[in-house]
This record gives sequence, C-alpha cells and structure tokens, in this order.
Amino acid sequence: MSATLREVIGETQHKFRLDADSARVCFRTRSELTQGLRVDTNIRQHALVMDEPQAIGGGDSGPAPVEVLLAALAACQEITYKAYAAAMGIALERVVVELEGDIDLRGFFGVDDSVRPGLSAIRGRVELTSSAPRAALDTLKAAVDSHCPVLDMLRNPVPVSLTLASP
Amino acid sequence: MSATLREVIGETQHKFRLDADSARVCFRTRSELTQGLRVDTNIRQHALVMDEPQAIGGGDSGPAPVEVLLAALAACQEITYKAYAAAMGIALERVVVELEGDIDLRGFFGVDDSVRPGLSAIRGRVELTSSAPRAALDTLKAAVDSHCPVLDMLRNPVPVSLTLASP
Repeated sequence: MSATLREVIGETQHKFRLDADSARVCFRTRSELTQGLRVDTNIRQHALVMDEPQAIGGGDSGPAPVEVLLAALAACQEITYKAYAAAMGIALERVVVELEGDIDLRGFFGVDDSVRPGLSAIRGRVELTSSAPRAALDTLKAAVDSHCPVLDMLRNPVPVSLTLASP
Repeated sequence: MSATLREVIGETQHKFRLDADSARVCFRTRSELTQGLRVDTNIRQHALVMDEPQAIGGGDSGPAPVEVLLAALAACQEITYKAYAAAMGIALERVVVELEGDIDLRGFFGVDDSVRPGLSAIRGRVELTSSAPRAALDTLKAAVDSHCPVLDMLRNPVPVSLTLASP
C-alpha cells in the first residue's frame, strides 16, 4: 500500500505543479433536521447521522457535531501521518489518535456571553508504531502538523458566509 | 417536541446559572488508521468511518475528514436553529443547510507552502420553513450565529496541543 500511496502522492504533486487549477476542489454537503435534534447529512454517496445526547434534548441517534469535529481532526491527523510517512520514506505500521476537548456549555446555552460556544482547548495523544528513530518521527510530526487541513482550520480562522433563504 | 425542548433548555440554563461547574464537559474520541487511508473512530457508543477518495489514494469507504468538518458545521447550525427557535418561541418547521467549501490541494500536498492546507472559504445556504416574519428569522439567525459551537471554532482559533507517544 505505502509504495502505491507514495506513487499516487508523487504523481499528484507533479500534476498540481503543472496545473494549479487541477488542485482547486469544492466540497459540498446537504443536511436536514429530521426528527427532534437529529440531522441527516449527505456527502456524495455517504450518509452521516448526528444528534445530541438526551441530557440536552436530543435522541442520541448519532454523535454530536462537536464530537464529530474532534473525530474529523483525529482522522485528518492519521491520514496526513500515513501520507507524509509514505512520501518521506518513513516506516509507519500503526497510528492511533486520542483526543479530548473541553467545552463550557454556558456558551452554547447563552447563560454567559463571555464564554465561547465552542471548545476552549483540544488535547491529543498521537501514538505511532514505527521502527524509525524518534528524531525521524519528530520530523514527521512537524511536517504533518503544518499540512493537516483540519488542524489548520482549527488553529487559523476560516472565512464562513451563511445566507438565509426562503424555501 | 418543541415545548419539551424549550423546557429542557430552560431547565439546563437554570442549572448552569446555579452551578457553572455542571456546564463544563470533556468530549473524547479514539480513532485508528485501519486499512490504507481508512480511519475508524469511536465516539462513545457511536462509530464513524472516514477515508479519502480513490483519486488521492484512498478507498472511499467513507467521507473525507474535511467533508465531515463541513457536515459538522451544517448539523451544528441546524441543531442551534432548532434550539434557539424553541427558546425564543419562533415557529420552525424545517431546516435545510447546504454548504460548500473551497480547497486548494497544493497546500495539503506540500506543493506550495503559501497555500493553506485547509478550506480557504465556506459558503452556506440556510433554508428555513417557518410562519414567522422575516425579521424574526433574521433575529434568530443572529442568535444562532453567535452561539453555534462549530461556527465559533471555524471563525476563531482553538488552542490545540498534540503530543507524540510511544506505543
């Protein structure tokens, strides 16, 4: 797999160097509140269900959006580790990521507007199983953390514009 | 549902005013790269699979992390609309959110380090079905956008610390 992945990455980089427009992609999602606080989302052919725990009025039929954001960060880290390890020729047998995020729900519930509604901090433990020396893994971590899309979007603001439409 | 939801919100706000500590929650996820670029994540009792499209070396067995982040924003918006409409006594029959996000993959692939790895912009269309006047829906939107946890985390930086661990 890694040899193939390395080739795919090399070919993709080559293509993007020759034609920057081919690197510009637009992702889309469509979702609808279906029952209580349950949300059904379509992402291409994939379906995703989110909900809230019963303690805050949901039916717990799926993870909550903030939990899903944490999961997206973990997955993005792992995929970026795999890709950069392949590209840099660093052996990597296994990647496990455990994340935790602190939230003060007084922000979401509008109890105290000095409290941000989102997570105030995220801490993570990245466990790599590899025969490579620690220095190589530290170099890999630096490359991953500067190229991981979801990490970038949490550390640096993303311009978001939202418009109300009539049905 | 909305009457009940309104009660749950009112009771929760009352509890948080009396005891701020009860509002502080820690979310956790654990995930592992299992096959190629596929990631399996556990969030409490919920499972979530992410992967990459075949064009960039994945098996497409689930949505990509950046797509999942968009979906989390959409779901968070919808749940926040439902909750604030209930709390504010605004009729709301249906909420549909369509999002699109622009990414230049030269960032992730390390082809041009002046290009950010994450989305450069997110645009969204929020469709509300409601008998309420437009002015009430605009007021609702303002309340939602200032209390939506995932929107907050995209617009404002989140401190993230990640540590490498040996297995």
